[in-house]
Amino acid sequence: MENKKGYKVFKFESDVRWTQARECTISAPGKPELAVSSPPEFKGTPGLWSPEDLFVASVNVCTLMTFLAYSHHKNLLLVGYECSVEGALEYSNGKYRFTEITLHPRLTLKTQEDAERAREILLDAQNNCLISNSILAQVKIVPDFQVASSAT
Amino acid sequence: MENKKGYKVFKFESDVRWTQARECTISAPGKPELAVSSPPEFKGTPGLWSPEDLFVASVNVCTLMTFLAYSHHKNLLLVGYECSVEGALEYSNGKYRFTEITLHPRLTLKTQEDAERAREILLDAQNNCLISNSILAQVKIVPDFQVASSAT
Repeated sequence: MENKKGYKVFKFESDVRWTQARECTISAPGKPELAVSSPPEFKGTPGLWSPEDLFVASVNVCTLMTFLAYSHHKNLLLVGYECSVEGALEYSNGKYRFTEITLHPRLTLKTQEDAERAREILLDAQNNCLISNSILAQVKIVPDFQVASSAT
Repeated sequence: MENKKGYKVFKFESDVRWTQARECTISAPGKPELAVSSPPEFKGTPGLWSPEDLFVASVNVCTLMTFLAYSHHKNLLLVGYECSVEGALEYSNGKYRFTEITLHPRLTLKTQEDAERAREILLDAQNNCLISNSILAQVKIVPDFQVASSAT
């Protein structure tokens, strides 16, 4: 499907089914079913992913995927990428909402030169992550770069 | 933690680790690890959840969880709730972003009176879903209500 200006429109579909208490499953054809619950803070079951978790993780993963696409395009060889994320849900302007999502990516590259290039590409990814573009929360990135030979 | 006005601040944390190609895992202590990929449209692996899927599903699940919390508070007995969701990602104001998320919940209640109460509670849930409050996309709900004895 295309919109008025000829840009493609992408659709993402899935299903939710309430199972019991504050729990449900999400499903989509060909994908593994996932049990989800309210977080324990909101009377949910510990040990299950919550919608808040999925929301925050989607920003984290989308930033990585954007970085991988740009790295591929620019022939940057990535050795490793891990990223912890923290999303803050707080009362703001009369409603609870996510106000800030902070990513702490730890990137490993082959050389110092690659690390410098990765820094630029990560900034580009931050500015063009389509999920960050879709939310009201401020997305902060606090990166750490390591060179493989000196990586611990 | 509390913010300046005494409202509690909730934090949601998880980790992402790049595994290969356009794939990664998300993890959090005590929760099942989840493999995630770019969607096939963006060179990812079919059959895995994408960040776009997780984002759209988080809106769907959060609406359900808000509805369940309000139903509990108002002593409404729910028989069944299933909801398909469609998120539209399109080019808007110079960037790709999610512009519209449409939920099609199918609720089953015990009586017609309960169905009418569920309609009001669902509207309340729509207006107070904390993830819908956190995004730029318009969230539309097109509900269908059934009474258990007449449910197919």
